[in-house]
Amino acid sequence: MNFNELVKSLQEFIGVSRKNSIEKVTKALSETYNISGDVLLDFGDDASAIDIGNGQVVLLAADGIWGQLMSVNPYWAGYCSVLVNVNDIAAMGGRPIAMVNTLSINDDEIYDGVLQGIVDGCRKFNVPMVGGHLHPDAEFNSLDVAIAGIAKKDSLITSAGANVGDKVIVAIDTDGRQHPQFVLNWDTTYEKDAKLVQDQISVMQEIAEAHLPTAGKDISNPGTLGTLEMLLEASGVGAFVELERIPRNPDVSWEEWLMAYPGAAFVMTAKEENCQEIIDRLSPYSFEVAVVGDVIEDKMLVLKSGDEEAVLFDQRKNPVLVLGN
Amino acid sequence: MNFNELVKSLQEFIGVSRKNSIEKVTKALSETYNISGDVLLDFGDDASAIDIGNGQVVLLAADGIWGQLMSVNPYWAGYCSVLVNVNDIAAMGGRPIAMVNTLSINDDEIYDGVLQGIVDGCRKFNVPMVGGHLHPDAEFNSLDVAIAGIAKKDSLITSAGANVGDKVIVAIDTDGRQHPQFVLNWDTTYEKDAKLVQDQISVMQEIAEAHLPTAGKDISNPGTLGTLEMLLEASGVGAFVELERIPRNPDVSWEEWLMAYPGAAFVMTAKEENCQEIIDRLSPYSFEVAVVGDVIEDKMLVLKSGDEEAVLFDQRKNPVLVLGN
Repeated sequence: MNFNELVKSLQEFIGVSRKNSIEKVTKALSETYNISGDVLLDFGDDASAIDIGNGQVVLLAADGIWGQLMSVNPYWAGYCSVLVNVNDIAAMGGRPIAMVNTLSINDDEIYDGVLQGIVDGCRKFNVPMVGGHLHPDAEFNSLDVAIAGIAKKDSLITSAGANVGDKVIVAIDTDGRQHPQFVLNWDTTYEKDAKLVQDQISVMQEIAEAHLPTAGKDISNPGTLGTLEMLLEASGVGAFVELERIPRNPDVSWEEWLMAYPGAAFVMTAKEENCQEIIDRLSPYSFEVAVVGDVIEDKMLVLKSGDEEAVLFDQRKNPVLVLGN
Repeated sequence: MNFNELVKSLQEFIGVSRKNSIEKVTKALSETYNISGDVLLDFGDDASAIDIGNGQVVLLAADGIWGQLMSVNPYWAGYCSVLVNVNDIAAMGGRPIAMVNTLSINDDEIYDGVLQGIVDGCRKFNVPMVGGHLHPDAEFNSLDVAIAGIAKKDSLITSAGANVGDKVIVAIDTDGRQHPQFVLNWDTTYEKDAKLVQDQISVMQEIAEAHLPTAGKDISNPGTLGTLEMLLEASGVGAFVELERIPRNPDVSWEEWLMAYPGAAFVMTAKEENCQEIIDRLSPYSFEVAVVGDVIEDKMLVLKSGDEEAVLFDQRKNPVLVLGN
């Protein structure tokens, strides 16, 4: 696959295009954000932050698990429901404290697998599943998980803080495997020591409290560059990124790598003078970390490879993330 | 319907029997409760409480909306998704601060209705819906909502605090209507002033912080006596209740009344000397409040009507709520 084919493939990637559909729900619900006066962040971020006084915020996020994942591998669906939620809190610089779930089940075998996956996920990440709601005789199988976290109000990593002139940083745990059934799941946690996995979460809190990143997100369904584009759109800026500087496991093609949902991975922006400290703090925890480009004023994500370059996303023409207002 | 028929009908009520199905999930997930060391309460309660230090707890709860409700009246499903979650926090003596949702949609008309119901529910209860996750092209329609609240650690109303000798109190807003499509929805909020509805939530926080109830739950799917039974089982006690002392809107039959999911209603236990203050504090907010019986040592819920009495539930033989351990 040459560079132009890669660019086209990423542009069409379903994980990116699906994000377009949230426009209606975002517009409707954004009407409610400010009714209570204590919501600090909202849909553009991985989690919302609610001011509870005394310098703390409660972080709250929710994620549903794809029905297909539940049918093919219920255990992995349960495990991933924990992973994706914990990463949402880590991306904000918060400490995950507890999860709740809603489980709809029409098949007992799936039920058993999902539950065991959840339990093992909770143990791996050291975050309890403290309650929920069960529809035992549903017409379908579905699993939705919500997570609460806690953070210092003045130490949040948001999606909207990137400034022109900042550097773009990608941190990915490159020690992993493509899941045998789901090639776009870059699994780095399942066979890894729980202590190290938990350290990958808590080190994000440490760099947040040291005020090192200006913005950040965990890499999720839209893949590395789709997630970066969401960050750029939330910040109202663009970026220039050099493909080959993005940390990658050499066993995986660029196309699959950039579309993957990794077990532990973040895109961030930071002032140039803070980049080395971010690299130094994350590297001991199995993250491969690199400065991959620059934040620019033009609201587009430009990807460069060798002598070639292309506009991967142009947010004025076709935004990936549609913000509430 | 005579007394014996009423007792039999309540025993068979699906809203009660459905609670039996949670045994497996409760047992599996209870293994995760203590991994982080800061979970104070778990499945027996309306919400879980996580200690965040400085005398506060974060409350976290989740509820799914019945698929049937979404198909028949999407707007009401959206509205109720807010109501049931807010009541879970109120029942704990907490302040609801924010919700997140996961919405699976296969029908645009249902989508529009659900969203508008959520927005109106948020406005009515003054709690924002701050984020979530959308499956836009699902094979089914479903709506799951999770809520976070905040409370003082020493002022929680739990399900497990009832003591032998306490009085049983039922507080119900009797000013309402049976929803035209759902006879067991005793709607008391939709046409009521938002300020009064919000006061019904915050007065629960006030009586919690005054340490007036020993235990409490919001009346939900299992109805008034099913909810009381869950409280008794969580507390390891029984109760003797006089049917005719339960506050009721006289337009509704006892059978439908006791099976209803009311808009604003709580069962509580309290020391005898605190009952009048609970009644005095709740009554100004459209609650009809009465002492309806006594907490007893025998682990059964005995219902009395005139000269007749019957064992409605015997938790040693057939518990409604199956606790994790």
